[in-house]
Amino acid sequence: MKKIVSLALAGLAATFVLPASAQFAKPEDAIKYRKNALFVMQQNFGRVAGMAAGKVPFDAKVAAESAAVADYVGKLPWAGFGPGTDKGDTKAKPEIWTNKAKFDEAAGKLQTEMGKLAAVAKTGKLDDIKLAVNAVGGACKSCHDDFRAK
Amino acid sequence: MKKIVSLALAGLAATFVLPASAQFAKPEDAIKYRKNALFVMQQNFGRVAGMAAGKVPFDAKVAAESAAVADYVGKLPWAGFGPGTDKGDTKAKPEIWTNKAKFDEAAGKLQTEMGKLAAVAKTGKLDDIKLAVNAVGGACKSCHDDFRAK
Repeated sequence: MKKIVSLALAGLAATFVLPASAQFAKPEDAIKYRKNALFVMQQNFGRVAGMAAGKVPFDAKVAAESAAVADYVGKLPWAGFGPGTDKGDTKAKPEIWTNKAKFDEAAGKLQTEMGKLAAVAKTGKLDDIKLAVNAVGGACKSCHDDFRAK
Repeated sequence: MKKIVSLALAGLAATFVLPASAQFAKPEDAIKYRKNALFVMQQNFGRVAGMAAGKVPFDAKVAAESAAVADYVGKLPWAGFGPGTDKGDTKAKPEIWTNKAKFDEAAGKLQTEMGKLAAVAKTGKLDDIKLAVNAVGGACKSCHDDFRAK
């Protein structure tokens, strides 16, 4: 049994051979990368969401800057969900890889909504920002419901 | 003694009252933010450095993209070094806050050199990329030597 597990792990490592467009040296790096990028995104988005919810005083400049960072950094985590990154220090569900089309769609939805938030944050119109924040929050929740273990 | 520590911690929390331009809800978030942003930066920079060192096949498009991300994300960690973020899960030395001008200069140096790397990476000239990678590496090392505990 141990030998089978060892062979399986060796196979896993072998599938993680990287092409010229190598993203990560080790699967652990990829997992850490996606988590770290999501945290940086969340901190920036959360600041704007706090303003939208009236928990933090609205500051149009900070909101616009934070939304822009969340938009940019929100494009990064997805490279960290490559083959062989389903095991380890992660809450990622197997469905990410078994239903990749649906996962990619959910990740795309988040990026679309975050792009819209960054655009309306530039206008400084708080009512529009609130609507866009809600849409981003919905995209986060939907993807977490389907693809992240509790 | 315990009471003194408690009072000191309460004072620390009090100094972390956030203005309208609030960056983080808790000091722990700020510490995690700077570490996470630095990791995302390092992964992207490391990919280009690997190509510069001949450890990874040179791919001009990937190098340019990775350097651009490292440049953008390399501007983010510094917001996480605010007052009250010197204690906790961090290797940050007290000198960051007691010699802030020198720290800011070191952080600025990194951003300048990373900006130069992003610019030369766009040209696809590997020799220029190698020189710029060395300069970034020097900026990383210098700041770590002075401001990060082993």
